[in-house]
Amino acid sequence: MVQPLVLPFIHAEWFETPAVVVHRPTLDRNIARMAALAADAKVALRPHVKAHKTVEIARRQRMAGTQGITVAKLGEAEVFAEAGFRDITVAYPVISAVKRDRLAALAARARVTTVADDLEQVDLLARMAEERAVTVGLWLKVDTGLYRCGIPTAEEDRAAAVVSRILLWEKRWREEPGGGVYFAGLLTHAGHAYGAESKEEVEAIAESEGEQLAALKKALQMRGLPTPALSAGSTPTAARVSKVPGISEIRPGNYVFNDRTQVRLGVANPEDCSLRVVARVVSRPTPDRCVIDAGSKTLALDQGAHGSSGLEGFGVVCGKEGLRVTRLSEEHGVIERPNSRVELPRVGQVVELIPNHACPVVNLTRRLGVVGEAGWEGWWSVDAQGRVE
Amino acid sequence: MVQPLVLPFIHAEWFETPAVVVHRPTLDRNIARMAALAADAKVALRPHVKAHKTVEIARRQRMAGTQGITVAKLGEAEVFAEAGFRDITVAYPVISAVKRDRLAALAARARVTTVADDLEQVDLLARMAEERAVTVGLWLKVDTGLYRCGIPTAEEDRAAAVVSRILLWEKRWREEPGGGVYFAGLLTHAGHAYGAESKEEVEAIAESEGEQLAALKKALQMRGLPTPALSAGSTPTAARVSKVPGISEIRPGNYVFNDRTQVRLGVANPEDCSLRVVARVVSRPTPDRCVIDAGSKTLALDQGAHGSSGLEGFGVVCGKEGLRVTRLSEEHGVIERPNSRVELPRVGQVVELIPNHACPVVNLTRRLGVVGEAGWEGWWSVDAQGRVE
Repeated sequence: MVQPLVLPFIHAEWFETPAVVVHRPTLDRNIARMAALAADAKVALRPHVKAHKTVEIARRQRMAGTQGITVAKLGEAEVFAEAGFRDITVAYPVISAVKRDRLAALAARARVTTVADDLEQVDLLARMAEERAVTVGLWLKVDTGLYRCGIPTAEEDRAAAVVSRILLWEKRWREEPGGGVYFAGLLTHAGHAYGAESKEEVEAIAESEGEQLAALKKALQMRGLPTPALSAGSTPTAARVSKVPGISEIRPGNYVFNDRTQVRLGVANPEDCSLRVVARVVSRPTPDRCVIDAGSKTLALDQGAHGSSGLEGFGVVCGKEGLRVTRLSEEHGVIERPNSRVELPRVGQVVELIPNHACPVVNLTRRLGVVGEAGWEGWWSVDAQGRVE
Repeated sequence: MVQPLVLPFIHAEWFETPAVVVHRPTLDRNIARMAALAADAKVALRPHVKAHKTVEIARRQRMAGTQGITVAKLGEAEVFAEAGFRDITVAYPVISAVKRDRLAALAARARVTTVADDLEQVDLLARMAEERAVTVGLWLKVDTGLYRCGIPTAEEDRAAAVVSRILLWEKRWREEPGGGVYFAGLLTHAGHAYGAESKEEVEAIAESEGEQLAALKKALQMRGLPTPALSAGSTPTAARVSKVPGISEIRPGNYVFNDRTQVRLGVANPEDCSLRVVARVVSRPTPDRCVIDAGSKTLALDQGAHGSSGLEGFGVVCGKEGLRVTRLSEEHGVIERPNSRVELPRVGQVVELIPNHACPVVNLTRRLGVVGEAGWEGWWSVDAQGRVE
């Protein structure tokens, strides 16, 4: 049975629901574990802050030992740069004039790297860097099986062509003073691990993720193209991929919270899930159905990550084994009991849920409640919430 | 072929994507049509503003002729009250002391009605109204087949018991000066219409929605319990239900935008869809796949409304028949072409999409771009975005 971490510390009648709440001791333990894992494996830890979008959490990660942060969007990068983060990987293609402009402004005040997977993009970014007299590191984005962005690692010719182009611009930058781009290395995200059926499958994907990078690095070396670094590793794959020789850094994000998906994958236990949704029963129209005030605008409709759909329903009701969140509309969650011996909560009672996917839940809320060992500690602002542009 | 409404008016290189944009002439036409429909049927139009959460749009609805607004959450009600709306139905159970407190504050500055579906809740709201010297109208929330909140209309004894209790409190309020509650009528939301397979099925649900209300009203009258009003009607069911004798008001929301779900239900044509998502192609790693910068944090994962799943994929790519949005992760949308003769857009190009469900898309953005007949008109703030509490 999954224990509630938050409910013991709140006064239900006066607690505003729905609320997204972090159990800070669990969060800190998750942060420390990943930092230790990276230190043991001698890889850099560059956490993906899109998982939490919260400056306070990124500070805690930094205290535990990190080497910069990863973001998905420039809007996120700008928020964290403003908060004093000075080493940022924008792990997302920067396309369009307006975004190159913003990247240049960011690079003027922080060490910035970003990704590229085609020649034209490399040229546009390099010219921007020269014109604006800023320096930007470029990772070759490679695809290790997610089939989303990036050049498949098996397509060595295509990869070599883009890397050669980056190195050409890098040579120019090294020879002339001013701005330019340099080759940062190979970067991948094996998000297909989220669709795995078992812990063993996750491990196999992680191993393949690392070995594909190492093999491509070797192939590039054979062509005289040196690869400075290999960046890989999400929350499910970080532990295994960090042991593959040659891997330089890992970029997990979700691990600060964990969620029902990580539990399903065998990567975390329910008690490692630091993010909880507190919702109130607002109606109990029949003995077999109650309705809570957390719907898809709070819990999100994800049944996995990356569009995977390994989970049934929309969250775990802590301390209430046997209850199922069977349906969500925007402001309503329907809880049913497949087993009639399980008692449904009454109208007015609060319940605590572990969401399927923590990241979109945080993106839907402006603030995170914080509970510590001794009780309520206040609110953290989700500083980069909704900064999708 | 669905035509783009927004793309002709933007400069792609300098347009920030992803962006949620409203085609104002289409929006205004949708608003006028529903107002005319309500006027013709001689029912009040009390639009559900949770669909757009935008004060500017509610003002346009008011100009076209409405009788107050409907909201789902107190947070939304507070935003619209602040903007000068003085007749508000909170069509959501108000449970907990903290929310009753906020309801009282709201009722002190606007005409407020809300819903109840159990005796204890009626007593709590009535005592709050007396103590705080405010007046609140109470609708009996009834269930016409959505199986979410509300007393099923067939359970006349239960309905009569709650209505009797409301009328008891109303009597006391009428006899003594000060605050109290009164019976507003019967209210339902036939959201199961969103799961219908055909226009005919939608019509049948709409008819049943209205007739169930009328039948329950009659049953209550037989017990000496007068029902002042009958409130029903969502975007798909409004036209039909407003013709059922006795229906007093309709509460559609989505109609201002329409979306792929309304098109699927036969309620709107693609050219009636005023809400569009503009996204950019950020990668085209293979000839059969491109990736856009609108993922689930922009387009939302809905494949219908109310958890229905009648749609394939995650949106219509306007002007590009044959392309499919096959997968969404948080910041990436994957577009594929099942038919190899269809050309995929290139990196840097922008595409315009009609989302599956407009309401969550608007909830995910802080602002709506506005395009008029002559081009770009600026931004509207989504004032009540994320006000789920």
